[in-house]
Amino acid sequence: MGIKDSLWCIGGASRGVTGCKFSLYPMSDQFITIILDSIETTDTTKVWKLTDKLATCVRGKRSHIADVVKGFFINSYRTDIHMALEATYSKGCPGDIDADSFMDVDNEKSNEVKLKGKHFDVNSKMSFYPMGEVDYMEHIAKVVMIAKKNNVFVGSSHYASLLSGDVHDVFDTIEEICKYGEENLAHYILQVTVSVNSPTKL
Amino acid sequence: MGIKDSLWCIGGASRGVTGCKFSLYPMSDQFITIILDSIETTDTTKVWKLTDKLATCVRGKRSHIADVVKGFFINSYRTDIHMALEATYSKGCPGDIDADSFMDVDNEKSNEVKLKGKHFDVNSKMSFYPMGEVDYMEHIAKVVMIAKKNNVFVGSSHYASLLSGDVHDVFDTIEEICKYGEENLAHYILQVTVSVNSPTKL
Repeated sequence: MGIKDSLWCIGGASRGVTGCKFSLYPMSDQFITIILDSIETTDTTKVWKLTDKLATCVRGKRSHIADVVKGFFINSYRTDIHMALEATYSKGCPGDIDADSFMDVDNEKSNEVKLKGKHFDVNSKMSFYPMGEVDYMEHIAKVVMIAKKNNVFVGSSHYASLLSGDVHDVFDTIEEICKYGEENLAHYILQVTVSVNSPTKL
Repeated sequence: MGIKDSLWCIGGASRGVTGCKFSLYPMSDQFITIILDSIETTDTTKVWKLTDKLATCVRGKRSHIADVVKGFFINSYRTDIHMALEATYSKGCPGDIDADSFMDVDNEKSNEVKLKGKHFDVNSKMSFYPMGEVDYMEHIAKVVMIAKKNNVFVGSSHYASLLSGDVHDVFDTIEEICKYGEENLAHYILQVTVSVNSPTKL
């Protein structure tokens, strides 16, 4: 077996591609309609995009990745439906490739103007994985401090930090943590769950 | 801010606690019933367990963690409902604690006998994160080889390896990868999605 055959990211990207693999889970018989509506509404012209049975992958500039994933989530929101987003942001895999990305685009976010007036509360958990770093716990502490600074940190739990607040405050914190990862680490992964309308009291 | 205040795992565990944080997402109006039925059916007496708005966390011996998460998934399966499990297995966080775990139990899996006759196909993706290791890509290649050896590896995609096959073959591969992590790494994280009945063709 060659290494090329076994790893999911091969070759080494030179252009700083940020990616996110995400799934939307509306707990409803109408899940197909909700997701298709969201795909229709969200502008993805500034990112590379591929959907398979398990997830959608978007790749491009950090700001557009943040904009598009927030867009999909907000555009899928229904006041009466429990829904979760599972999203894994990543940048810097030693085997990543320059292909499958849109880096030659401007920096203006395509969805933000339509999204910014929409507000609702979300619950979230996040785990940050700095790869190849012996002192990774220090970096984890730093990104938790970002969440605290932004007043969305509500506590620690096993394996994750808990965030809560307005949807924009939480997603903007996620974007800020990706920025931290980009500026301070060769390779980071940020795993996030964002949930609305959970029937669980706790 | 003290580090204790900012990290989700504090103190250092001496007894080798494996944990998994997981969420079941049945895309159905009946999601509460499906999940409650699964909780009723799955034997969790040999693990520590806590559910919050976002996920359920189980902690204990590796074999029981594997058994209980597979149990929840198989016991939630409906032939006509699209469902996904998002599960993050972990062991060895430098800040983990001995509390919140059940290590003084025997090794006999509580659910396996009831589960082993139930067979259906699943699609899965997995990403393995060896923490604090400079040569982490080598370890990732090794766990992909485990999936290949078990004939469940079906390809690479951005940020994840794709697995497919009978539900037992996929979950047993997940358990074997956790064993690899336990035996070869100080701290590993294994992020997995397991899906059934997706309407997406690709």
